[in-house]
Amino acid sequence: MSCRHGAAACIAVALSIQFVASADLRAATAATPELTGLQRAALADRRAYDTLRALTEQVGQRFAGSEGDAKAVQWALATLQAQGFSNVRAEPVTVPHWVRGTAEVTLLGSSSTPLRALALGGSVGTDGRALEAPVLAVTTVAELERLSTEQVRGRIVFLYDRMLETRDGMDYGNTVRNRSAGAIAAAKRGALALVIRAVGTEDDDRPHTGTMRYADGVPRIPAFAIGNRSADRLLEAFGSGPVTLRIASTSRCAGTAQSANVIGEIPGRDAGTPQEQFVVLAAHLDSWDVGTGAQDDGAGIAIVTEAARRIAELPQRPRRTLRVVLYANEEFGLSGGKQYVLDHAAELDRHVAALEADLGAGRAFRFESRVAASDLPTAIRIGQSLAPLGVPFVSNDTGGGADIGPLRERGVPVFELQQDAAKYFEIHHTDADRLEQVDASDLAFNVAAYATVAQALAEAPDLQHLARTWPAPQEGGHPCEWRP
Amino acid sequence: MSCRHGAAACIAVALSIQFVASADLRAATAATPELTGLQRAALADRRAYDTLRALTEQVGQRFAGSEGDAKAVQWALATLQAQGFSNVRAEPVTVPHWVRGTAEVTLLGSSSTPLRALALGGSVGTDGRALEAPVLAVTTVAELERLSTEQVRGRIVFLYDRMLETRDGMDYGNTVRNRSAGAIAAAKRGALALVIRAVGTEDDDRPHTGTMRYADGVPRIPAFAIGNRSADRLLEAFGSGPVTLRIASTSRCAGTAQSANVIGEIPGRDAGTPQEQFVVLAAHLDSWDVGTGAQDDGAGIAIVTEAARRIAELPQRPRRTLRVVLYANEEFGLSGGKQYVLDHAAELDRHVAALEADLGAGRAFRFESRVAASDLPTAIRIGQSLAPLGVPFVSNDTGGGADIGPLRERGVPVFELQQDAAKYFEIHHTDADRLEQVDASDLAFNVAAYATVAQALAEAPDLQHLARTWPAPQEGGHPCEWRP
Repeated sequence: MSCRHGAAACIAVALSIQFVASADLRAATAATPELTGLQRAALADRRAYDTLRALTEQVGQRFAGSEGDAKAVQWALATLQAQGFSNVRAEPVTVPHWVRGTAEVTLLGSSSTPLRALALGGSVGTDGRALEAPVLAVTTVAELERLSTEQVRGRIVFLYDRMLETRDGMDYGNTVRNRSAGAIAAAKRGALALVIRAVGTEDDDRPHTGTMRYADGVPRIPAFAIGNRSADRLLEAFGSGPVTLRIASTSRCAGTAQSANVIGEIPGRDAGTPQEQFVVLAAHLDSWDVGTGAQDDGAGIAIVTEAARRIAELPQRPRRTLRVVLYANEEFGLSGGKQYVLDHAAELDRHVAALEADLGAGRAFRFESRVAASDLPTAIRIGQSLAPLGVPFVSNDTGGGADIGPLRERGVPVFELQQDAAKYFEIHHTDADRLEQVDASDLAFNVAAYATVAQALAEAPDLQHLARTWPAPQEGGHPCEWRP
Repeated sequence: MSCRHGAAACIAVALSIQFVASADLRAATAATPELTGLQRAALADRRAYDTLRALTEQVGQRFAGSEGDAKAVQWALATLQAQGFSNVRAEPVTVPHWVRGTAEVTLLGSSSTPLRALALGGSVGTDGRALEAPVLAVTTVAELERLSTEQVRGRIVFLYDRMLETRDGMDYGNTVRNRSAGAIAAAKRGALALVIRAVGTEDDDRPHTGTMRYADGVPRIPAFAIGNRSADRLLEAFGSGPVTLRIASTSRCAGTAQSANVIGEIPGRDAGTPQEQFVVLAAHLDSWDVGTGAQDDGAGIAIVTEAARRIAELPQRPRRTLRVVLYANEEFGLSGGKQYVLDHAAELDRHVAALEADLGAGRAFRFESRVAASDLPTAIRIGQSLAPLGVPFVSNDTGGGADIGPLRERGVPVFELQQDAAKYFEIHHTDADRLEQVDASDLAFNVAAYATVAQALAEAPDLQHLARTWPAPQEGGHPCEWRP
């Protein structure tokens, strides 16, 4: 086997070889001269990187409800205006606000060993008071749920499963449950606090933050993530007997604040008429409060704005209107995504498709859809327009993305360009998520891919809406008791 | 980041660096001079490879109920005897038998394109008659289950999700559901046949077989796997409109046959007394009928027999008896695993632990357990004895393995040496599963790792049994209507 970069790369290589071998490249790939020209131009793009640089340098962190969040809304309005988008506006969204404060997690023993820690997003604090307790080490929430109150009561629970690096980040879903559901499961059994091995793949000691849940009627206990090396050290300590930790924190919820979904459009040929249809290009404007959100989701903002702008520069206007939506507060409660479908309920039937960029700057390596079975040929044809970029169509079972989830639940077909996430989860939700982690040519590649799909969606045959679905039930709710 | 081989490698490297940096290597690693000597000797082992060569050359395929299966039982008895095991015996197991016959899957169009296909294990055939029908392409069973009878009736369903290569094979669980549950979901909605993209990670065109299920009251439709290139070609055809396949097969169920669990022991210091305790070292004797089962599970047989033999050669007998169990028919209904717990019900409380090798010859890269929370320090100490091999303890949430699943469900603690499966799923259940795919030094590494854990388990403090659990309910049963 010469395919050293994972199966998906092999799919891509195999498909592009098949396509190149075809007698009529354009017919086989559905890549029109217009699309091929768009791709070539976009591959040389550096404007997306300039946009990202401006965002990270002029705004920086933009956690929901923070000063940076308000600055980001102003920056986005000014940027979309300057880039020539139409109908630029901010649609108000109320967001919860949480203040991180301090976080201490110390391994006690013959000497005290401080571990690198961050509070999980929304965690209660201890008012700064130290709490010492014996530790119970458990791999996963599922394992914790098999334990009795007797085994857990009075302990600090340490969940130590580690996320494995893969190209599509598939282990995130497995391991993030420790972060989101761990505090509820631990507190139900009488635990005093939760410490998790950070959900991150790097061989380093970075704590990764991220949102968590509390449930009504279950005590709210402080929750922290520690870096991978800290987690290894803590786990190793168990080989010699009982382990004690000291924790302290000043985290707290701090009410709500005003933010906004920022929107700009490339008007289609039917713009302004009752026949106008929309293709949503999505990214989220907020970031976590550590780092500057360069990859999460600065990269997505740079990609979708630049993809739309390149289509605006084509000689002919697209059939459908491309609506770039930079969503408020994805990270800490999906406020913007939930608000958008309420604000636009009357025109959702004219939302033909949605495509989100929220997996950093790694290069797209496969294309997926969720369309009606009868529209699969259309999805495959759109996928074939990506053949010059070596990106194969592989699935009609994507979730699309977090911000466009509420659109999908209401029946809007969604598409996904799965980006290479092998490095993404090394810095995801950490203070290392900064501009220097993003490669300008990766961004340009994605501009080419997203622009291709956006343009193909703007011109494609009509797509049926799907049956409405409801999100899977989960225990607990927003840690700051915020309701959309 | 200099860690290029996945997070788990980084864990291993990081831990081994920590251990080497330790002031007292032996204390920190729990690797006694005896264990270190065992590891050094085993790393130079070539006897496991000789065992594997003998099995694949003298027996070859040994599918449950086949002539090869009977030969394998005789071979195993003779081999364990010759290698000095005690109490060597065959414990009878009734197994289902299925005959593969022919499989044709042809893409019809302006020209006919034969696709590389195998029947799924247990599939009904068509008595050799050709069946032509339009194809409905669907990514996964989950997606298929959202479709109506109207959309599926009269079609051949094509499930095309592709397994992504990872170090721990984690995507197998996601994608194998197309194989195991696809025919039921398709037939419930009126489909005439099922074709799946083979569950395999290679950029090649090998069909991978494997077992499937049928359900009472649901029509039994023929089911096939096609290679990855064939699947790409079939999917691509949809971009140009409707697609028709012709299928035919002579597969059939053929009653039951006699096989056996083959057992050999390294007697512990309490052997023959009522205090005798057992550590089970497991692998499975059967294979699929294509290839010669060199990695699945010839490698496992070679590893566990050699690991036990090396412990037998130590100056002192182990405290507990090491019981090597080569299970009958893992692949096509887990007959041996289910029979073993019935045959040994009276002594299960003296089964202290079980460890299975059934993931080929790739090197172990992490160690996992499922023990009572209070026994975690013991599991971590056992894991620390693997430090010289760079294998870290990472989880107390393993399932252990298929054959020892019935032991785990009855409370026996299980352990797992997770082997590198990046290449395993390229040839799993295909005619390429042959001796040349197995590297002798990889086998030797695993002999060292399994011998270390087996010896540590033989001498460890007593381990509590876990609460009894029951397997998750699944729809349907054995495709040949066999009941254990």
